[in-house]
Amino acid sequence: MKPLISELQQRVEARLQDWLPAASIHPQMLHEAMRYSVLNGGKRIRPILTYGTGMALGVPLEQLDGPACAMELIHVYSLVHDDLPAMDDDDLRRGKPTCHKAFDEATAILVGDALQALAFQILAQDRSMLAAAEPRLAMIQHLAMASGSRGMVGGQAIDLASAGKTVSIAELEDMHVHKTGALIRAAVMLATLGAPSANEDDTAKLDHYAKCIGLAFQIQDDVLDVIGDTHTLGKTQGADQALGKATYPALMGLEASKKEALELVNQALSSIERFGEKAELLRYIARYIIERIH
Amino acid sequence: MKPLISELQQRVEARLQDWLPAASIHPQMLHEAMRYSVLNGGKRIRPILTYGTGMALGVPLEQLDGPACAMELIHVYSLVHDDLPAMDDDDLRRGKPTCHKAFDEATAILVGDALQALAFQILAQDRSMLAAAEPRLAMIQHLAMASGSRGMVGGQAIDLASAGKTVSIAELEDMHVHKTGALIRAAVMLATLGAPSANEDDTAKLDHYAKCIGLAFQIQDDVLDVIGDTHTLGKTQGADQALGKATYPALMGLEASKKEALELVNQALSSIERFGEKAELLRYIARYIIERIH
Repeated sequence: MKPLISELQQRVEARLQDWLPAASIHPQMLHEAMRYSVLNGGKRIRPILTYGTGMALGVPLEQLDGPACAMELIHVYSLVHDDLPAMDDDDLRRGKPTCHKAFDEATAILVGDALQALAFQILAQDRSMLAAAEPRLAMIQHLAMASGSRGMVGGQAIDLASAGKTVSIAELEDMHVHKTGALIRAAVMLATLGAPSANEDDTAKLDHYAKCIGLAFQIQDDVLDVIGDTHTLGKTQGADQALGKATYPALMGLEASKKEALELVNQALSSIERFGEKAELLRYIARYIIERIH
Repeated sequence: MKPLISELQQRVEARLQDWLPAASIHPQMLHEAMRYSVLNGGKRIRPILTYGTGMALGVPLEQLDGPACAMELIHVYSLVHDDLPAMDDDDLRRGKPTCHKAFDEATAILVGDALQALAFQILAQDRSMLAAAEPRLAMIQHLAMASGSRGMVGGQAIDLASAGKTVSIAELEDMHVHKTGALIRAAVMLATLGAPSANEDDTAKLDHYAKCIGLAFQIQDDVLDVIGDTHTLGKTQGADQALGKATYPALMGLEASKKEALELVNQALSSIERFGEKAELLRYIARYIIERIH
């Protein structure tokens, strides 16, 4: 499965390269900062989820390039804004200075704003996608809702509001369902919306898969914040703890957190049984979540 | 013309009220801050331009509500982000504390992000718009490009980069063409894209109208920054000067600036002669630009 993952990473990387304005285009510093933030060796988990879902449903890869790029650009814009001093105030991202450190705060704000616009531009414009306009509009609507105030952005607001406060596991889960869960579900749903073969039941099963791995991913992220080291993580180890943020290990213990993540991954795997061999990539991603070390 | 303007302002206000999540919806503070930023008695010039263009082309008003709301949300998000300490660092907006003053910086960043997503959501989702999906996609693409790194966001980057530097009139114009011009053109173009009756020549004439009034508006803004007072402007008088920003009056003198704005408005007016009485609102807007006092 690793050669396929690597091929898909290179695939989305090449498409992102094409969509991002060249650093020589006016205004240069903004475009340089956009490219710096996007083309930084990210794991591209959301695009790979989009490709993986499309493969499970028999959608040709070239029809998935647009949604895959859009997913990654929304994800990167949220990282750039989350790293800002007024938000999580992070200096490192994937082992490199964050956008506002490498450039400046104003540029980082604008980079995020422009990447969001580019994501929607791609969904509206990409010519290699489905000819049908209706599924594209459905994707745009879904991505806008998943990334907006009742999705990802709302999750960041919930996260900031909860810093330093005692929160329950239910509240922590509510935050993650918004902050990271909505976008991971969108990565799967965008591919599903573009698949004429997907019936209602397929959609429900894939959505359940996405919900489970989204939450598992976040629990594992908290676990890694405790047990990882700064070099391997590519971000400051213990950063969440230092900020007094609620984490699963803090609320339910390290071992129980690991077990919960494993259970969610198993749920995700049984949810996609029906797709047989075509869903091997989705299975690999689910397993990867609990096996990864950063 | 004033009763019509007022009717259209109330119309877009009501639609924005409906689209914005209630302040009682989780996460409450974010939604409260979004409503605070949008529902603040703004003049709604961009939506009125969208309605006015649609009227000139015979498009029913209810088909213009979606684009009108989307235009205003992109405009408001840009104001919220531009006011941030890392950007223009403004405390007042329309006589009230700016979003980051009334709430906090993190919330203001998230408000802008969520408003941008909502703008695209509306264009994809609004049921009262054109049934045809293709023109909607064209609108989404146009708005994304006009508001992105080669449009509005790029203009803000150019503006920030030029602060404190000596710039030429050509450079100042380049900044405005991006920062405010692109969005004003989009307000006109979104209505044009939704009008089956608009031919290529109509589109070119309306686009020229939009280019002229966009630049006239900005020159007049600079003029008002010099001659207005804080109370009438609803923002700090002389703020641009204090920041060492390039302005038309500083570069070409106050009287020459006024004359240039007038000339652009006259160009705009002759560009829309062909639309006869149906374009009365567009004419009124053009004249309003140089007659306004804030």
